[in-house]
Amino acid sequence: MTSSDLIATPWLRLRRDRVYLDDRGAHVDHLVLGFPDWVDVIALTDDAEIVLVEQFRQAVRETRLEFPAGTIEAGESPLAAIQRELLEETGFASDDWRLLGTAPVFPAWQGNRLHSFLALGARQVAAPSPDPGEAIRRRRLPFLEFLERVETADIELPSLQLAGLYMLRLRLLRSAEHTLSALKARVGL
Amino acid sequence: MTSSDLIATPWLRLRRDRVYLDDRGAHVDHLVLGFPDWVDVIALTDDAEIVLVEQFRQAVRETRLEFPAGTIEAGESPLAAIQRELLEETGFASDDWRLLGTAPVFPAWQGNRLHSFLALGARQVAAPSPDPGEAIRRRRLPFLEFLERVETADIELPSLQLAGLYMLRLRLLRSAEHTLSALKARVGL
Repeated sequence: MTSSDLIATPWLRLRRDRVYLDDRGAHVDHLVLGFPDWVDVIALTDDAEIVLVEQFRQAVRETRLEFPAGTIEAGESPLAAIQRELLEETGFASDDWRLLGTAPVFPAWQGNRLHSFLALGARQVAAPSPDPGEAIRRRRLPFLEFLERVETADIELPSLQLAGLYMLRLRLLRSAEHTLSALKARVGL
Repeated sequence: MTSSDLIATPWLRLRRDRVYLDDRGAHVDHLVLGFPDWVDVIALTDDAEIVLVEQFRQAVRETRLEFPAGTIEAGESPLAAIQRELLEETGFASDDWRLLGTAPVFPAWQGNRLHSFLALGARQVAAPSPDPGEAIRRRRLPFLEFLERVETADIELPSLQLAGLYMLRLRLLRSAEHTLSALKARVGL
């Protein structure tokens, strides 16, 4: 097999994998997207509000509401990456982080993974400091209201970020931990 | 704004949107992935088994278990596309289809949407007829066992496909419909 890059940027590579079928050169080509791993977070404050970000997304040419999220930089752990992204995008930090789960984003096309986190007791520690060119507005909503608005499609999360809500549900159903039980009761799960 | 294609195939376009900031040519470039819309399905048989597909995915260089899924072709509705994909990949059909939900896949990068379906009473009507070059193995599992194995991460679905499970949960919790109530009881939701 040979691999060659058709596009290479720090955030995206488009790779062609050529898989040879015999020794006379018959082959099939696969286009593969190479992204760094991604991270996102369901960040909840002590008064059960979720911290979200709202920004214009060129790909859909709309302003969208999303979980704080981003890309793991070279040498960074998933946890360090999402802590950095949450702080940059919202000015919020937390001392209580849990990995909800990790899975390949979409193996039909791309090789990277999404690491979804829960942050409890999130609190503002700084002003937001988004990357130049990012115009991000922080939003806070009662988590229960947020869940209801997702349910009625009044808030339309990216498909990919619904994975975090699914993983959170599994965690809450499974956990006997006091902190999570309290959250579970609070959000009616 | 100007748009230009860096890569254009039937399944993927990589577009550069150049947004001008002033009339002297200052600009920012956005790379945007253009995919056709995607579809996937949670296909359940009358004996509460889920129909899955297993195939080697070049992007992650592993054999993966996934919901039947695919790409909407030109002029096709989301429903027609997933009915075609289910039939091609598994030989299964259903007379009872419901749209679970639709959302943009990941607006940070790409403009397309995922349409997630539920098919009840799925039954084999033909031999699978995958596209040339696709080596797909059909798998059936009791749906409850499947959900438990997803929960314990013994089966690792793509992040993107967890959206379908989340939407199914919302539908089952909300619905008073008899067919869905029976399913709800059966899978312990």
